Amino acid sequence: MAQSVLLTGAAGRVGTAILADLADEHEWRLMDRDPMTDDHPGEFVVADITDEEAVREAMDGVDVVIHLAGDPRPDAPWDSVLTNNIDGTQTIFEAAVDADVEKVVFASSNHAVGAYETEERTPDLYRAHDDYLLDGTELPRPGNLYGVSKAAGESIGRYYHDEFGLSVACVRIGNLTEGHPPIDYERGQAMWLSYRDCAHLFDRCIRADYEFEIVYGISDNDRKYYSIERAKEALGYEPQDNSARHD
Amino acid sequence: MAQSVLLTGAAGRVGTAILADLADEHEWRLMDRDPMTDDHPGEFVVADITDEEAVREAMDGVDVVIHLAGDPRPDAPWDSVLTNNIDGTQTIFEAAVDADVEKVVFASSNHAVGAYETEERTPDLYRAHDDYLLDGTELPRPGNLYGVSKAAGESIGRYYHDEFGLSVACVRIGNLTEGHPPIDYERGQAMWLSYRDCAHLFDRCIRADYEFEIVYGISDNDRKYYSIERAKEALGYEPQDNSARHD
Repeated sequence: MAQSVLLTGAAGRVGTAILADLADEHEWRLMDRDPMTDDHPGEFVVADITDEEAVREAMDGVDVVIHLAGDPRPDAPWDSVLTNNIDGTQTIFEAAVDADVEKVVFASSNHAVGAYETEERTPDLYRAHDDYLLDGTELPRPGNLYGVSKAAGESIGRYYHDEFGLSVACVRIGNLTEGHPPIDYERGQAMWLSYRDCAHLFDRCIRADYEFEIVYGISDNDRKYYSIERAKEALGYEPQDNSARHD
Repeated sequence: MAQSVLLTGAAGRVGTAILADLADEHEWRLMDRDPMTDDHPGEFVVADITDEEAVREAMDGVDVVIHLAGDPRPDAPWDSVLTNNIDGTQTIFEAAVDADVEKVVFASSNHAVGAYETEERTPDLYRAHDDYLLDGTELPRPGNLYGVSKAAGESIGRYYHDEFGLSVACVRIGNLTEGHPPIDYERGQAMWLSYRDCAHLFDRCIRADYEFEIVYGISDNDRKYYSIERAKEALGYEPQDNSARHD
């Protein structure tokens, strides 16, 4: 069934990958602080995630929120991730509860667990023979302050799920690139997420029934050190791509 | 060996418990936004945790920081915990790294995991026959926005440990009361922390050698559903009190 979906940060890379495949699958309300230059489905709201009133207006009549907005830079300074990522995410969840939204899908990040990539584990961690796997039940180990903000967003989502019954999926997105996996970058190949697998995974987050989930958003890469079992079981994720089998 | 310790939030209840037993054990620099009315050891700095310059000055020459300052209300509003607890804690860690402090002890809270106390588990969870235990390796499940802020503080600590090598202990403090355990309050009896066990636990956090730890700060209560094994193993914690054996 088509859902009414609010997509924040719609003009970014993840939003672009989602809309490339799912434009006709749902009723979209897109939000970004920058106008979109390309054609886009549905309505478009130009607003910043820190504008609480605009966020509340954009929630009206929505079934599902996909929350991508925020400062996407791994080296973003603290003040920016505090305001845009942590405070912005709390604004989204609070408004979603007040608007009786059913599900919020939160774009978390591999950087929330980046510090598991210790000197002792790398580069073996990025290679197919190594069987070390993170599965989403481990505590955060952020690799930067951006990762701290994403771990905080997951905790915010957990609270709004437990307290208000909102369905919440946190997707720790890997390395999203269009067309082909990163070249000469083992870490990127390990956590590659193809555009079509990205769109499919978020489609599953829109359609599936769940309570609270933390899943890894990567393709089915031979080199992976993130388990995709939980995404398969809880959401019905069926990735088609693998960085090792890509031409 | 006596250490030079900066204690933030020194005028609060946890600070009071710590200083009651440890006034003569270390060289204290106390900080609080409110002046202390009682006698106190060492230096006293009146400053707010959000005053970055004052925080940086107070770090000078310090071996260990015990960071208690923040909004302590479980029902504190988001804006307050965002500023005082999340942003304030990042300010502390950043300043501690810049000042070459060795250890930061962060006052986390039982509220970071309060939502594990589901309707299905309570009140059995609070009784001695029930063997459900949280051990500090579980993901946060905050029971309120204050708990969200404490979970975020733990992630901030994890990052500063992994990135800069700072020793970090996060103490999920239970229910601290002076003299005797809470009466007619099963939850409080389960997570009671006596004043002397509190002081002893923070003394162990000052003296022990560790990397990054999350431990529960409670007495050895028959009713406990928080494990104190990690506090014993990693820090040498030896609690003397038990809410079930108190007159």
